[in-house]
Amino acid sequence: MLELYHWEPNANSGKPIITLKEKGVEFTSRYTDLLNFDQHKPEYLKINPNGTIPTLVHDGYMLAESSQMGEYIDAVFPGPPLRPAEPVERWRMRWWTKFFDIFFGPSLSMIGWSIFVGPMVRQKDPEELRQAIERIPLAERRVAWTEAIYNKFSEEELAESLRRVIHGIEVFEKGLANRPWIAGSSYSLADINAFCMVYALPAMQGEHCNEQKTPRILDWLRRVYARPAILESFKLGRTPLAERALDVIRQIGAT
Amino acid sequence: MLELYHWEPNANSGKPIITLKEKGVEFTSRYTDLLNFDQHKPEYLKINPNGTIPTLVHDGYMLAESSQMGEYIDAVFPGPPLRPAEPVERWRMRWWTKFFDIFFGPSLSMIGWSIFVGPMVRQKDPEELRQAIERIPLAERRVAWTEAIYNKFSEEELAESLRRVIHGIEVFEKGLANRPWIAGSSYSLADINAFCMVYALPAMQGEHCNEQKTPRILDWLRRVYARPAILESFKLGRTPLAERALDVIRQIGAT
Repeated sequence: MLELYHWEPNANSGKPIITLKEKGVEFTSRYTDLLNFDQHKPEYLKINPNGTIPTLVHDGYMLAESSQMGEYIDAVFPGPPLRPAEPVERWRMRWWTKFFDIFFGPSLSMIGWSIFVGPMVRQKDPEELRQAIERIPLAERRVAWTEAIYNKFSEEELAESLRRVIHGIEVFEKGLANRPWIAGSSYSLADINAFCMVYALPAMQGEHCNEQKTPRILDWLRRVYARPAILESFKLGRTPLAERALDVIRQIGAT
Repeated sequence: MLELYHWEPNANSGKPIITLKEKGVEFTSRYTDLLNFDQHKPEYLKINPNGTIPTLVHDGYMLAESSQMGEYIDAVFPGPPLRPAEPVERWRMRWWTKFFDIFFGPSLSMIGWSIFVGPMVRQKDPEELRQAIERIPLAERRVAWTEAIYNKFSEEELAESLRRVIHGIEVFEKGLANRPWIAGSSYSLADINAFCMVYALPAMQGEHCNEQKTPRILDWLRRVYARPAILESFKLGRTPLAERALDVIRQIGAT
């Protein structure tokens, strides 16, 4: 039995969704609505006590953390390998995964939360919101959600996030200079993880990510978007975030 | 040819040192003095342009990021395997590595920097310090070093770090409840990575990490300290940090 509890096919949940689709592995999709705080409800906490999304349930095991989950999926299921055979390429895959998870992702997320997640959840009843925050099991997630919901990000924090995103775009453009895919000669988990973070960059940060400034990222994005697993994955989305991917496809001329 | 550029055998540099010693792999040790900012000097930046420690140089390849480096070392060199064969144990190894790298480590580091690294480097000439900071290639490392050198951590930041360390100790104690080693039945990179962060906890946070409150961590520490690779690794240390390990060994009765 294979069940995936996930939200939209982006940042975190997108990684296992695309990985499973790419390998052709059937799974039961359990859409977990982050905007409705489904991941902090008692029935979800029985599955994953930390209340994080995504969660993979396989043969009685509960697996969390999307990047670590990706290596597990690639190791146990059939289908095309998504980790290079060469150790140095595998190291590069993990170096870039860390770069996107730790450096690039949180900065991009802060911007995303300030313009999408925050405004969406602020439409809810204030008392309901207060109770939802109280239910969050991890203290640091309570702090992060409080900041996002009540728009407490300071100008300095948002400016530093934007600086990191711009710097991250430059580092990524450089990283694509010598090889077709992030880890080397083959499409890998690093490409999937990066895509989940940057798939909308030409629309969201068009000033810094475009044909002139970052031709390699645009070329790479077109090649990733062309993979059938990507559009299959976006079908699991239920918010305007998935439509944004279609806008980007039109904008950059991907198929 | 195998060269390791490293600082003290703790937090980051300790991981590849202990991993190589555990596998019995010979390497050339290049001590890189963090307290002298050796890692930001032009000759080091030729090896690793980001100026981070440790750096592994193997057969013309430059590998950075200590946890990702550990998987590479285990994959390419002979000696006892340090990654479990079972995929779910391997996932658990990576889950805990992320926990220590992202959650526990930075909080423990902030405390360590405020009581050790900061006071040590503040003894230097102020103008020399200013120039050393200017040479740091990564902007966010410049900010982090400036905070550490001039002791700019706020009381709130230090209190939040301590809260996370205490919470991390509890999570770790719980994690050791059902299995002898972190990933499962065998000693793995996760144990090495965790050890590099927590080896001095009974001395540094004795109120929260002791025989009564955290018997499993103490038992685990004794078993890790008993491995010959550990004392071999501490011989590469040149500051009082390595002596602290010997104090802990006496304190908890490890061999």
